[in-house]
Amino acid sequence: MPRAVAGPEIERLIQLLARLPGLGPRSARRVALHLIKKREALMAPLATALGDAIGKIVTCRTCGNVDVTDPCTVCTDPTRDARTLVVVADVGDLWALERAGVLNARYHVLGGVLSPLDGVGPDDLNIASLVTRVHDQEVSEVILALGATVDGQTTAHYLTDVLRDTGARVTRLAQGVPVGGELDYLDEGTLSAAIRARTQM
Amino acid sequence: MPRAVAGPEIERLIQLLARLPGLGPRSARRVALHLIKKREALMAPLATALGDAIGKIVTCRTCGNVDVTDPCTVCTDPTRDARTLVVVADVGDLWALERAGVLNARYHVLGGVLSPLDGVGPDDLNIASLVTRVHDQEVSEVILALGATVDGQTTAHYLTDVLRDTGARVTRLAQGVPVGGELDYLDEGTLSAAIRARTQM
Repeated sequence: MPRAVAGPEIERLIQLLARLPGLGPRSARRVALHLIKKREALMAPLATALGDAIGKIVTCRTCGNVDVTDPCTVCTDPTRDARTLVVVADVGDLWALERAGVLNARYHVLGGVLSPLDGVGPDDLNIASLVTRVHDQEVSEVILALGATVDGQTTAHYLTDVLRDTGARVTRLAQGVPVGGELDYLDEGTLSAAIRARTQM
Repeated sequence: MPRAVAGPEIERLIQLLARLPGLGPRSARRVALHLIKKREALMAPLATALGDAIGKIVTCRTCGNVDVTDPCTVCTDPTRDARTLVVVADVGDLWALERAGVLNARYHVLGGVLSPLDGVGPDDLNIASLVTRVHDQEVSEVILALGATVDGQTTAHYLTDVLRDTGARVTRLAQGVPVGGELDYLDEGTLSAAIRARTQM
């Protein structure tokens, strides 16, 4: 803004909101105004929720999930099958898979994928702890739920190698046409993968 | 989520974030994860900024702007021309006009526009205080910066009527082709307005 139209507290709030993913300067101002208008109903509870969470959030030392307890809610859930371990790059992927609601397993969050270009090697990810877990907890299947990118698939191949001696079955997500996807709009790589992995009707 | 993968503090944070304008459940989760990852650099300052602002934000009793002081930064700025008053529906409009940076005036925030369908009448808006201000502060020009909607223009006509006896000149924003706008994509109403208000080259 060329000139201040409000005190520094409001400017600072807008600047911080603009740093949230998906928000730019314009939407940050809209969010700030909305918060200001809903001071009691939204701004105060949000400030409290942020403050509550900051003090409590921890990274689970077993699986790398973020939660307010360590071990986390997933690791301590007795109804989950501890012998199936789903390997994900990030906590967001864990949340996404849980929304699908088809898995009843435990997770292992790598904290990223191998990326020679970005200087991310095996020691930068939670790979040693994964191998230890698979050994110690007698895991029977490791599902590699990594992105279908070059780095994701490189990581999947690397993990398959290091897990070879554990005796666990190592699987990965199917590649193919996304549900609701029009063939017309799909890239050649996805179409080739879908053709190669075609299944009997 | 079908089953909790994290404690209630994180779920609550996501639910509150999803109530911000422009964020849905999916983007709220992404924002929450981003905040969790940047606990020190972003989450803590944001919690503090929200807390700071909540306690201090007031509505300026002179113009209706939101600020941390009353009268607000705009009303107390001695470099602004107090004889020009810009009437806006909302604080967001005030912010938008200030970003354009062409005005050096004071503002008056109506708090909405007249809307018979939504039951908003003259007494629901800061119209009485506008008339008083125009009288008492010897305002020479009132710029009606209201949206080019039916309700906005109805409000502009109503205000022109009630301000008639004050002696102030009442103007409104020009209507026409937006800068960067392609004629092809403009609606007929805008094109008609632009043709009628055509200016000499």
